[in-house]
Formats: sequence, structure tokens, C-alpha cells
Amino acid sequence: MKRREFITGLGAASVLAGAGVAGPAQARPEFKWKMVTTWPKNFPGLGTGANHLAELIGAMSDGRLQVRVFGAGELVPAFEVFDAVSRGTAQMGHGASYYWKGKSEAAQFFSAVPFGLTAQEMNGWLYYGGGMELWEELYARFNLVPTAAGNTGVQMAGWFNKEIRSVADLKGLKMRIPGLGGEVLARAGGTPVNLPGGELYTALQSGTIDATEFVGPYNDLAFGLHKAAKYCYYPGWHEPGTTLEAMINRNALEALPEDLQVIVRNACKVANLDMLSELTARNHAALHELVTRHKVQVLPLPEDVLKRLRALSEEVVAEIAEKDAFSRKVYESFRGFRDQVQEWHAVSELAYLTARSLA
Amino acid sequence: MKRREFITGLGAASVLAGAGVAGPAQARPEFKWKMVTTWPKNFPGLGTGANHLAELIGAMSDGRLQVRVFGAGELVPAFEVFDAVSRGTAQMGHGASYYWKGKSEAAQFFSAVPFGLTAQEMNGWLYYGGGMELWEELYARFNLVPTAAGNTGVQMAGWFNKEIRSVADLKGLKMRIPGLGGEVLARAGGTPVNLPGGELYTALQSGTIDATEFVGPYNDLAFGLHKAAKYCYYPGWHEPGTTLEAMINRNALEALPEDLQVIVRNACKVANLDMLSELTARNHAALHELVTRHKVQVLPLPEDVLKRLRALSEEVVAEIAEKDAFSRKVYESFRGFRDQVQEWHAVSELAYLTARSLA
Repeated sequence: MKRREFITGLGAASVLAGAGVAGPAQARPEFKWKMVTTWPKNFPGLGTGANHLAELIGAMSDGRLQVRVFGAGELVPAFEVFDAVSRGTAQMGHGASYYWKGKSEAAQFFSAVPFGLTAQEMNGWLYYGGGMELWEELYARFNLVPTAAGNTGVQMAGWFNKEIRSVADLKGLKMRIPGLGGEVLARAGGTPVNLPGGELYTALQSGTIDATEFVGPYNDLAFGLHKAAKYCYYPGWHEPGTTLEAMINRNALEALPEDLQVIVRNACKVANLDMLSELTARNHAALHELVTRHKVQVLPLPEDVLKRLRALSEEVVAEIAEKDAFSRKVYESFRGFRDQVQEWHAVSELAYLTARSLA
Repeated sequence: MKRREFITGLGAASVLAGAGVAGPAQARPEFKWKMVTTWPKNFPGLGTGANHLAELIGAMSDGRLQVRVFGAGELVPAFEVFDAVSRGTAQMGHGASYYWKGKSEAAQFFSAVPFGLTAQEMNGWLYYGGGMELWEELYARFNLVPTAAGNTGVQMAGWFNKEIRSVADLKGLKMRIPGLGGEVLARAGGTPVNLPGGELYTALQSGTIDATEFVGPYNDLAFGLHKAAKYCYYPGWHEPGTTLEAMINRNALEALPEDLQVIVRNACKVANLDMLSELTARNHAALHELVTRHKVQVLPLPEDVLKRLRALSEEVVAEIAEKDAFSRKVYESFRGFRDQVQEWHAVSELAYLTARSLA
């Protein structure tokens, strides 16, 4: 806790007075935190989700804990967020745990893996299925406390200038798809490449790449990707419910009074729910606009392609368990939850959504 | 605010001291609230969700706001919760808005309607699709502030002693299914009956009813319904993502300092997320036990039955709009959101869950 300051709590006293409650002016501690993020400042949904989290903490703590948000590169570069919070340069960070697979391959399970869990299932696993405890165990090595602080829901498969009619069309496909999804594509004969979001439009338009994945309609529309690609494919098999994280420096968290610690953790939960709720509302409006106004062709990946991607995904994800004992423990917990929740969702979510869509 | 008390904040001072923060002992207001509920005390998932909400408020407020939870009948009967909170007998209530259709038919949209929204979609509509504002408008007439404070997810269609092979099998079916679902069954030729949860087991076993809906595997297993019925049908077309509510007496809420108001509202959001997460984890474990240990036959409702129920549901739900101008406004908002989000979830949630289940 390097940046803690104590000030006289005039704000708090005036709030009490405003509510008609008599009370003496109080000396209250004020904490000032920095939150570094992996997102461009105010990036729709994700960056604005980090802003929202900071506001929630401020409001719930009556201003006793103020969190200032920094976009990627403002204080530290995007991919140094983890280390910056670990060493206390910032008290808090906002990103996604699959960015930190260099620290441990197992980190990927806490954001998204191909053919893994949906948003609702991720929350079930994390909060009531043992996932959170494993995540805490991993991040404790780095003096960090992890929390889930957002979710994108099911993403789109991506934007393509080559039609995908069968498994054969994956061969030679040059696609921007990082991480495990990229490894799966490589095993299917494609060529995964990694490019920052800002270069996708030009790379698609110039033919440097044949395809790219990004997020979902709301973010993709804002980026104008529909103007550089012929087809939009679904579903996002590689990211079925990506959890965003807020990580907290352990010393900073423990220096807070108990109630502020509880407020920080629960503000992250609210941010988790709010981001998915916002994207659920905005994605459907954006999809509607893409289809009706921009005449985008939204196409399903063929069944045989999905089956092949699924089989390869199972291989790639299972190999994480081979890396070390901790990764095996996380894999087994995740895999066990997924296989059982899939049975439940076959007769609930999936069966209901299917029934509702019957013509 | 009848039950407010001010005490010397020794608890608060000791927390600050415990965190190593020097500060004077402070006089802090303490608020004591009662939360009346429509659930039996500690009813799994729903009643325990109300307890959880009370604990969250206590912890986030550092004990400044203490909420005591009452099971149905302890302070007021289940179906008097709304009026009790409206008149200030209790400051808070926990239930489901479809219980209050006697106040306004439109209330049903804020919990669940047949072939309506899933949990994720309900949250999208309520928080980012205009739903919350409409709910607030309705409850303001009764001096109440509504919040979403839980969700069951997709329920099961129910427990049956008659096999449902076609639409014809609905004719004469005596089923416990209250509310709009019951009205739909009646139009399909069945006989809906209303019975309290405690009488379902005996009614099924004695043949007084042929079938009953209840909640989902976790709650149904605890009630032992599998011992009184031959078949378990899915999916819960009549309750695809039931939102539970916490309603707050407006005067009680407004008498709180600003930060406590923010804490109460956000604690309800956390409870909303937590209940669905818990039930997602527990339902899949319970389903597994029902199938593997108790050899329950879990069967899908046939397509033609679902199509018929859907067509009748559209009729029944649309008729709510005829009741009054406000009901029409809510219906149109809900319906517009559902139709668009259905398009989005066709290419995201539904398409992904389908892809993951391909053999």
C-alpha cells in the first residue's frame, strides 16, 4: 500500500447530513488506487466495464476508496498489467487470464478455452464449483487476488473472406486467432496469426489474412469489420463465454478495512453481471443492424467443421494438463464441471432455446 | 423508517483499529430492517438466497444495516409480503413478481412468462433494455422499489405419471401448474390445478393429479418428487428463467444514507448472480443423481406438443397487453426485446450449445 492517504471525511459527513441523520463530522480513511487495464481506454464493453467497476467501488464505499482507471499503455503496456499489479505499481488490474499463460498454462481455464463453458456455466464453476479457489491458488503465487469482473458471452466465429463449406476449407486458411483457438486451427491445417485489434481491418482488406475472430456484433460493428469481410460466421467455438478479470494486489487488498474488502469483491461480481447483461442487449441490436442495414451474410460453420474443431480442441485442452500438476488439477475440475453441466443444459438452456425457435 | 436505531459504532471503530488505521471511535447510525419472504424458511436456493442477500448487506455496510429474514408465515403469510412491505410493516420483501398479478397483470413480465426470456436475457432486458424502469414505474404506485435478486434459470417441465406422446395427451391432463402456464394448459385441453408445494407429493402419489411442475432437479430431488412420478419432462417452457425479486419500502430506502442505498441495490445484483450460479452448479449434480442413482426417466416434450404450447402461450401472453395501457407498454418492451435477442442467441448461445453437443 504505497499510495494510501488519509483525509478528513467531509464528503461522508455531508452525505449523512443530506439524509437527515445527525452525526459528528468524522475522520475517515481514504484510499486511492490505480487500475491498469489491457484495453484501449473506454473500449466498448470491456474498457467501459473497467470504468464501471471503478465507479461502483467509489459509490459503494462512499468515496473512501477511489479507483482511477488507466487504458492500455497509459501507465503500463497491456501485457505488463499482471506484473505491474503483482509488484504493486498499481493496486488493481483489469484484463483476461488467458493473457498470462506465460505464468501458467492453467491460467487459460479462468477466461475461456475452446468448447469450454458458457458465461452462466463459468459463473457456476467459479463461484460454486471450485473454480475460484483454484484461481486464487494460482494467483497467490504472484501476490495477487483474482476476481471475475465481466463476461462477453458467446463470441462470433469471426469475419471471413473465404467461404467455409467443409473441413477442407480450413486448410491454408490464414486467420488471426490467438491462443488455444489458434493451436486448434493449426492442427486443422490452417495458419493462425496474431495481430493487434487495430490492424485487423487493413489486414483483412489487403488480403494479408483471410479471416479474423474478434468479439461479437457490438464490438465488431464499432470496428467496421463488416466492411472488410464478406462473411460473418458463428458460433464462437473458441470463446464460448470469456470471463474478464479484475486482479488485486494482495497487500493493497489486505490493507483495507474488512468492509471495503467485501465491497471490492462484490463490486467485481456486479461488474461481472453488468457486462454480460449490457453485451446481451447491445449485441442483439448490433446484429440486427449488421443484417438489416449492412446486409451482412451471417452463416453457420458446417457441422463437420464444428465436429473436427471440437475433436481437435479436446486434444489441445487436454494437453494443458500435461504441463504440470497444478494444470492437471485445474483441467480435471473444469472438465468434470463441463461434462456434467452439459448434461443439465442439454435438458434446460439448450432444450428451451431449441423449443422457442421451432417454427 | 420506524425501526431505526442509533448506537455507538464500536463495531466500526474496532474494524478500523483491526486494519491498523488510526481513527476516533465514531457515532454511526445503525439501521435494522426486516425482510419478509414468500419462501419457507431456508428453502434451498430461494429461501437461502434471501438469507445470503441479508448477509451481503450486513457485510458490505460494516454492520450499519442489519436485515433479519422471516420465512413465509413467520411475520406475514407468503402472499401478504407485497402489502406488508408496501405499508412498511417490513422494510424489505423477497418473492417473485408474478405472485402480484392481482395488483397488475403486467407484474408477471418481471418474473417469468411462458416462452419468454432466459436468465441471461432477463438480465439484459431489465438492466439494459428498459425493463427495470418499467418495473420501477409499476411498483412506485405501491410505494415500493423493485430489484432483481435471484434467478432459477430454465426450470423443468415437471413430473408426470402420464406419458406425453402428442398434443392429444394434454387433453384431460390434471396438472398442478399455476399462473399463465396453467392458462396455456387449459387452452390445450388440460385441467390446471393450484396446490401448495407441500401437498404435491401426496397429490401425485394418490392420483389426485397426473402431473406437477416445480422448479428444477436440485429443489425437486429435495422434495422427493421422483418417488411419486414415473417421468420427468423437459424443458420448462412455462418458466425459462424466473427472476426472483427483492422489493424495498421506498421510505425505508430513502431514509438510508446514499452509500447504503447503493449497497442495498448492488447487494441485490450480487444475490441475483449468485443464485443462478449456485443453481447451475447444484442442478447439474442433482440431475446426475436423479438419473444415475434413482433411475429417473428424463424425457423431452415432443416437438408438436412444444409447438402447440408455444402458439397458445403467444396468445395468452399477448392478452395481458389488452388489460390496460401500462400492461401494453410492458408487453411491447418485453416482446421487442425477446424477438431480437432470440435472433442473437440463435447464432450465439443456441448455436454454441448445439455445436458442443454434436456427437
